[in-house]
Amino acid sequence: MICDNLTALDGVLHFAGQNTLALAQEYGTPLYVMDEDRIRTNCRTYKKALETFYGPEAMPLYAGKAASFTRLIKIIKEEGFGLDVVSAGEIATAKNADFPMEHAYFHSNNKTDADIALAMDCGIGYFVADNVEEVDAVNAIAGEKGIRQKILLRLTPGIDPHTYAAVATGKVDSKFGSAIETGQAEEITAHALSLSNIDLAGFHCHVGSQVFDSDVFLRASEIMLEFISHIRARFGYTARMLDLGGGYGVRYVDSDPVSDISANIAQVASAVKAKCAELSLPLPALRMEPGRSIVADAGITLYTAGTVKKIPGYKNYVSVDGGMTDNPRFALYGSSYTVLNAGKLNEDCDFECSVVGRCCESGDILQENVKMPSSVGRGDIIAVLTTGAYNYSMSSNYTRIPRPPIVMVSREKSQVSLAVRRETAQDVLSLDL
Amino acid sequence: MICDNLTALDGVLHFAGQNTLALAQEYGTPLYVMDEDRIRTNCRTYKKALETFYGPEAMPLYAGKAASFTRLIKIIKEEGFGLDVVSAGEIATAKNADFPMEHAYFHSNNKTDADIALAMDCGIGYFVADNVEEVDAVNAIAGEKGIRQKILLRLTPGIDPHTYAAVATGKVDSKFGSAIETGQAEEITAHALSLSNIDLAGFHCHVGSQVFDSDVFLRASEIMLEFISHIRARFGYTARMLDLGGGYGVRYVDSDPVSDISANIAQVASAVKAKCAELSLPLPALRMEPGRSIVADAGITLYTAGTVKKIPGYKNYVSVDGGMTDNPRFALYGSSYTVLNAGKLNEDCDFECSVVGRCCESGDILQENVKMPSSVGRGDIIAVLTTGAYNYSMSSNYTRIPRPPIVMVSREKSQVSLAVRRETAQDVLSLDL
Repeated sequence: MICDNLTALDGVLHFAGQNTLALAQEYGTPLYVMDEDRIRTNCRTYKKALETFYGPEAMPLYAGKAASFTRLIKIIKEEGFGLDVVSAGEIATAKNADFPMEHAYFHSNNKTDADIALAMDCGIGYFVADNVEEVDAVNAIAGEKGIRQKILLRLTPGIDPHTYAAVATGKVDSKFGSAIETGQAEEITAHALSLSNIDLAGFHCHVGSQVFDSDVFLRASEIMLEFISHIRARFGYTARMLDLGGGYGVRYVDSDPVSDISANIAQVASAVKAKCAELSLPLPALRMEPGRSIVADAGITLYTAGTVKKIPGYKNYVSVDGGMTDNPRFALYGSSYTVLNAGKLNEDCDFECSVVGRCCESGDILQENVKMPSSVGRGDIIAVLTTGAYNYSMSSNYTRIPRPPIVMVSREKSQVSLAVRRETAQDVLSLDL
Repeated sequence: MICDNLTALDGVLHFAGQNTLALAQEYGTPLYVMDEDRIRTNCRTYKKALETFYGPEAMPLYAGKAASFTRLIKIIKEEGFGLDVVSAGEIATAKNADFPMEHAYFHSNNKTDADIALAMDCGIGYFVADNVEEVDAVNAIAGEKGIRQKILLRLTPGIDPHTYAAVATGKVDSKFGSAIETGQAEEITAHALSLSNIDLAGFHCHVGSQVFDSDVFLRASEIMLEFISHIRARFGYTARMLDLGGGYGVRYVDSDPVSDISANIAQVASAVKAKCAELSLPLPALRMEPGRSIVADAGITLYTAGTVKKIPGYKNYVSVDGGMTDNPRFALYGSSYTVLNAGKLNEDCDFECSVVGRCCESGDILQENVKMPSSVGRGDIIAVLTTGAYNYSMSSNYTRIPRPPIVMVSREKSQVSLAVRRETAQDVLSLDL
């Protein structure tokens, strides 16, 4: 199986020790299931590797955009992570989880003045400032509040991580950050250093998502440290913090490579140290921002099959009771997923089909070319694996379909409990006037 | 301008007679604005054309998936339309609007048993039954409830409407319906006719979306009537209703053609009558299902610009305070939209840019290659036109960004009022346990 929290027992898919058919029976479908132990294990891998290979000045930040809800942010807090937030809603979630806001980093290419004021009122640790307008707004609002706000400047190191366009963010041509190549990174640095209510702590970059190639991070750290060295020479300012962003890939299908996070971090830590020595720079506090690699393999989604349609000479379709409303990633990016018939793991899979959703839209597809047992039929529980990241967080009420709940399971705690309740039709209506 | 409810006054965009800068000021941004008069005008065009050219046995049904909220469904009811619903949430919305449920048609390729029971309890007029599993489930549940349920069978006439794949639904290879070409349409008809709790009222098809070519509807009606004639000969059953679905296109950009709905319906009505005469069929009750063409040009979205990023040698970006969370259509389909700087219509537009959203995702783009005044800057109000369909309905809380409100304006009623209130961060948190 894709991940070792998945097992087969008498032909039935078990996830984190739980019988998925029993979960579907108890909580209904569609259902997000998340494995608390796996989230914690993933967190500890990052934390331990950063401490071991870099030292106490390294801290992983969880990128909340991958999935954000109160229970999850509590786990992140307990694991000693920092947190990336990108919206008022994510800030409210962090507050609700009693997250220590001095360890929260506020991202986004376009923060409104209201967002900036709210974040300061919550005592946010750092703004990851994207652009000049934001730096000016942060400076002005900090001035009004009588504080000096710590920021990182987001830079684009000009690296193409060879990943798909929608999530490739480290290139010069990006809506994010200021490019080192064009001189704009230096300009915004000079500007930030000139402002009295801004405390420039250092620099941030993010090269992309679902990256398996460690070289990208090594190259990014090299470019960033050369920039830091250049800025020191130019302005006499030495960055205290280097944030290399996120992006390590996860396995959606068997053919995806396995990322050895620990080995990768060892390489990055070693490269940063070597480059700092070469440039005679003091070691900056190091930040990395895993999101997907913390939660993706800690989640699966369970559906009930409703319809099996065989169109001779064309194609077969299995329709389930969810779809692009709870997982728009195939519709958006053509993303790959592993799909299983959770109660029929012992049967041969010789029926090729598209697994599609229930939305009135042809593009509402969860996965194409799926192999199912030929006995697949109405009432079967269908599991889509590796859905812990960017599924719940991207879910919608398209056609007013209420969103699924999240049930959190922990084998260690022998606990199964709802972390997000099922949305109802009345909830969906609640904003109508 | 794209639609005559848009005007320029002293360089300021007015929509349905309202100053868009004033609307943005009063209600905040991002903001959906909808023009009640335009919705009603669009409804009346369909209703009058169907009555004039076909007769009292024709009824337009509004496809709620384009946009569904209580105030809108009340307007649809007042205009004497029937209604397509596709989920428990849309059924609840119809109920909330006191919609006469005998004129509601329940679509979806995959209705759960719970949905089916709920719809019957609400007294739904028709199931547009997609497949054998659904026909059987409707029959069984109707039996339990002691009723005989009217249904239409959804068929695929095997027409490619030359539109993009995601919304092309009339082809044989579709998750929707039963194909005439493969004999499966005949099989499901025979099956439905054999069931005692099913009252087969007729047949439905839907060839696609954003279709400007009237030929597609003419060809579909021909194929459907030939099928109806064949079924009459084969089983002695004469369909009472023919539902030709929706799909008329709207103008997103100047280069899109204008659909003359009235002329198109005249053609379709005439073709159906001629074909019925040719086949000696009694005229069926006729249904058409406009969604987009009722609400798309009745909506615009207002944003506030936050950041203007000029990357020499690459590209320019204008970031706004919304994006793929309130309008995922560019991210999903690369859809075209007209984008204006609402307060600077008198200025030359010589600054080419991508207008992008505020989500932490490179694919969060509203439109590329937009021409803006070179003075565009933080605080400018940016309008995206023709957003009344599939914008609010597809909106999400990605990265926990709360969703915008909908303000409804009516020049005739001299009324401006919220129809959907702005979502708050607390609303977004409300399902967290």
